[in-house]
Amino acid sequence: MSKINNIELVRHSLSHLMSMAVQELYPKVGLGVGPAIENGFYQDYDLSEVIITPEILPKLEKRIRELIKEDIKFEQHNMDFDEAYKLYEHDPYKTWFIDDLKERGEKKVSFYKSDWFENLCAGPHVKSTKEINPEGFKLTSIAGAYWRGDEKNKMLTRIYGIAFDSKEELKEYLAQKEEAQKRDHRKLGKELGLFSFSEMVGAGLPLWSPKGTVLRNQLQNRLLEVSKKYGMLPVTIPHIAKRKLYETSGHADKFGDELFKVIGHYDEFVMKPVNCPHHTQIYASQPRSYRDLPLRYMESTMQYRDEKPGEIGGLTRVRSITVDDGHIFCTPDQIKEESKNIAKIIEEFYTSLGLFGSHWVSLSVRDPNNPDAYIGEPADWEKAEKMLEEVSDDLKLDAKRVEGEAAIYGPKLDYVFKDSLGREWQLATIQLDFAMPKRFGLEYTNEKGEKATPVMIHRAILGSYERFLAILIEHFAGAFPLWLSPVQVKILPISEKHNKYAEEVLEALQGKGIRAEIDESNEGLGKKIRNAKIQKTPYMLVIGDKEVESKEVTLESRTEKVGSFSIKKLIELLQKEIE
Amino acid sequence: MSKINNIELVRHSLSHLMSMAVQELYPKVGLGVGPAIENGFYQDYDLSEVIITPEILPKLEKRIRELIKEDIKFEQHNMDFDEAYKLYEHDPYKTWFIDDLKERGEKKVSFYKSDWFENLCAGPHVKSTKEINPEGFKLTSIAGAYWRGDEKNKMLTRIYGIAFDSKEELKEYLAQKEEAQKRDHRKLGKELGLFSFSEMVGAGLPLWSPKGTVLRNQLQNRLLEVSKKYGMLPVTIPHIAKRKLYETSGHADKFGDELFKVIGHYDEFVMKPVNCPHHTQIYASQPRSYRDLPLRYMESTMQYRDEKPGEIGGLTRVRSITVDDGHIFCTPDQIKEESKNIAKIIEEFYTSLGLFGSHWVSLSVRDPNNPDAYIGEPADWEKAEKMLEEVSDDLKLDAKRVEGEAAIYGPKLDYVFKDSLGREWQLATIQLDFAMPKRFGLEYTNEKGEKATPVMIHRAILGSYERFLAILIEHFAGAFPLWLSPVQVKILPISEKHNKYAEEVLEALQGKGIRAEIDESNEGLGKKIRNAKIQKTPYMLVIGDKEVESKEVTLESRTEKVGSFSIKKLIELLQKEIE
Repeated sequence: MSKINNIELVRHSLSHLMSMAVQELYPKVGLGVGPAIENGFYQDYDLSEVIITPEILPKLEKRIRELIKEDIKFEQHNMDFDEAYKLYEHDPYKTWFIDDLKERGEKKVSFYKSDWFENLCAGPHVKSTKEINPEGFKLTSIAGAYWRGDEKNKMLTRIYGIAFDSKEELKEYLAQKEEAQKRDHRKLGKELGLFSFSEMVGAGLPLWSPKGTVLRNQLQNRLLEVSKKYGMLPVTIPHIAKRKLYETSGHADKFGDELFKVIGHYDEFVMKPVNCPHHTQIYASQPRSYRDLPLRYMESTMQYRDEKPGEIGGLTRVRSITVDDGHIFCTPDQIKEESKNIAKIIEEFYTSLGLFGSHWVSLSVRDPNNPDAYIGEPADWEKAEKMLEEVSDDLKLDAKRVEGEAAIYGPKLDYVFKDSLGREWQLATIQLDFAMPKRFGLEYTNEKGEKATPVMIHRAILGSYERFLAILIEHFAGAFPLWLSPVQVKILPISEKHNKYAEEVLEALQGKGIRAEIDESNEGLGKKIRNAKIQKTPYMLVIGDKEVESKEVTLESRTEKVGSFSIKKLIELLQKEIE
Repeated sequence: MSKINNIELVRHSLSHLMSMAVQELYPKVGLGVGPAIENGFYQDYDLSEVIITPEILPKLEKRIRELIKEDIKFEQHNMDFDEAYKLYEHDPYKTWFIDDLKERGEKKVSFYKSDWFENLCAGPHVKSTKEINPEGFKLTSIAGAYWRGDEKNKMLTRIYGIAFDSKEELKEYLAQKEEAQKRDHRKLGKELGLFSFSEMVGAGLPLWSPKGTVLRNQLQNRLLEVSKKYGMLPVTIPHIAKRKLYETSGHADKFGDELFKVIGHYDEFVMKPVNCPHHTQIYASQPRSYRDLPLRYMESTMQYRDEKPGEIGGLTRVRSITVDDGHIFCTPDQIKEESKNIAKIIEEFYTSLGLFGSHWVSLSVRDPNNPDAYIGEPADWEKAEKMLEEVSDDLKLDAKRVEGEAAIYGPKLDYVFKDSLGREWQLATIQLDFAMPKRFGLEYTNEKGEKATPVMIHRAILGSYERFLAILIEHFAGAFPLWLSPVQVKILPISEKHNKYAEEVLEALQGKGIRAEIDESNEGLGKKIRNAKIQKTPYMLVIGDKEVESKEVTLESRTEKVGSFSIKKLIELLQKEIE
């Protein structure tokens, strides 16, 4: 068990103080669970028929502050089961907890007392409310929660709070949370018209509008462009396969619960939860020689996982997951060179997004104390780990060696990127795999004319497009860089008489492959500019009398007026920035 | 019933003559079915335990020729059922046919007699074998066929023949067939390494290698490039949806048997058999105004149909069908302009492939005698048919009006192209649809501020990539035009010492986006050239002492030596041809 931070004791103790405040108002309240959680705490209450609204929260907060100032001590004491049952026979919640402890073979029941309040609790807690900063916490929301998380049980009332050591940390957290809410990709996705869901299609199955598809395709094209320089070759596979494919690969075990079954009249299939097994079958479709290796397959394709309806949300967890997948089949001697190439692709791709630099790399290796947890020959492992270490050294990746984080089939390099809200995301990965080629009996003829097993390198650059776009939307708050923006230029004729020239400009831009749109609505210029800004369009072109006469355009960015240019000059400027 | 061509009588009569020849050899033979078919005829025989091999065919042919020369008459006569039963009580096949005629309420049993041979047959036949050209037919193959097509029944022996009016026609047919076999996309697909199948993935689910994927992606990019000029916008949808989506669209009825069911733990879906219903949901994700229309969605995406295992073959009939789909949502007034744009896209796309010109267009309209077979208002239909007629006139499509060929939901323009073997394929289509927008309750606000229903135009340019590529592979016999070729240039160093310069050339070409490969095998130059030609590579670059010294390259096409050029000049030449 990891050491409990003091702030966790504070959070847990605040949940007790909150229960004191609630019980003062509702003496008959029943207490469900009430743990410390990330950034705060909560407590479930059975308030019988009483319904409380968020208006009660400031009142409770005030009372908790008063309690804190009273320097109340938290004192633990144990009871025998008989005594505990007797004392709380009228309380079905405490009785349930006591039953539970007994079933688990505990010898005693632990209680914490603070002033008049006694709660069944294993602790630990702060010694006294003196340790709690009365300005460091806030009650944030009320929600319904089923007793024991089971919808057949009674719905309890859950009150959430957050708590930190200082008022400053609390403020910072609240500000960051507000910013995150503003940037929420579900909210922005709707406002910017990027993707939508349809009940008739189903939950977790996003429909990508033309604008959202621009984002996807721009990312995909950039990936292709960078990857082709390193000899990656696109391939194409279907979305279903016989279950036998995954029994052979081992995914049928691993993803058993997440496999969608596909039932036809003549055959049964499953929807692919991953792409590597299909790619092995392309490798296996021809005899291969060492001269053919490395073979580097890549593909952006949808895979399907049967996620729980309750866990589906926005783009973060979907059932149709578009992955940027890639598999390299090579000889053991080629591992280092191939891994280096992937690392270079990762660097180039993330540099386009301005994310390279704000990251760290994990060299995930075996747990030396648990060598049996891994598949493959120890000699291969040592060689592979050493190669990845050399890749890190050669390319100055400064990878942090993390023991026990390797995949069961091989070591890997994982890239963790930081977004503009300071959140960390594991995105790119380079994984060596000695096991799958053996499972599928893949072969090549080596220089000596003997049969040998290739090594497989799994690589992802952006991972899942859906998750990646959720992150990017929030990272950029929808204000994408020019090359990625669904609409790059919005043309705003001041009045109807300027529409004709505006349309000429539109055609000139579109003819050069610039994604431009025109706003010919009857709104005034102010409203048109506001609308373009809400859409986070990188550039606006205002077209009025002056522009029509001079045959120029006046360019405004999201923040400032850039200047007036001829159309030709404008196109040059934009194309240069897009490059 | 359509008029029977004389050649069909010849074919049917030849099947009787073949049975005479067979019965001379095997007097106890039982006769199954024996119809005239396209280009020829067949007859099923119960030979008891006798197994015959193709060596018998020339012998049978010779005997048939002798019979033809005997000027044998074909004479029909009818029998009462009692008489027929009595005469053939020993023959289970004839007894079955007599039963069948009786069940169908026939009054008499029709027989045809030629010389000593009598066969139960409705006819008609030639009057005499004089009408048959003894040099116009050929027996082609022997196959097994279950009696009544049911695998629970006895396996009979089927002999196939082909027959034409003249020896020349027969030769032409055989030559074309030989050519078609050489060009068979399944054979070429394997030889050129374009696609493969895996038992573990399943039948009808092609895996596209890097080379095959180049073909797909080049076609897709060309389509995108042409379509974007006309304002088509790519969208992205998942491959599954709730069944309700297809109940609403009507496809659940139409494709009931071909729907793959998708079973999850929490929800049931089906794999999409078409894409239009998903696209309606993107349209419906926002309120739309007349100012937003037309909205033109396009997507290359896989749809799935549960085809019968016996009907699956190569790329012609697959279960994972990648369609180039497109749907335009517009006002009724925009139908003409939008249809014209699609017609222009079709022209431009097929011109890239050299197929435009060898085609005809069908204006498929209602059957005037059956107005109830169609959905929608007659006024809308008239307007739409007139618009398509105007499109044909304006663009000089010279569309042939074909009554009764409209879809139930609207009239259409179908493009039928002819390949290099003279075969016709219906590929591109422009279909007006008044019904689906109503079924999904799609709306827009018109100029008057009222709710109105948009019209939907379904359009396909190439249809299914799989079927299209099967046709293209056979049309080009694998020798694709330069822009489409998976490998555009093969570099052939004469010996090992030329490899270094060859690799420089490779890098220079690849750096300019030219798909080049190098052959560094230990083979001699002759073998390397042969291999490149088998792969149908458009250009070869031979690199020897002369080239290394002069820093030039010598370019050879599939058929001739083109000349020697500097690398820079070569790239210019190739890029120009690709354009």
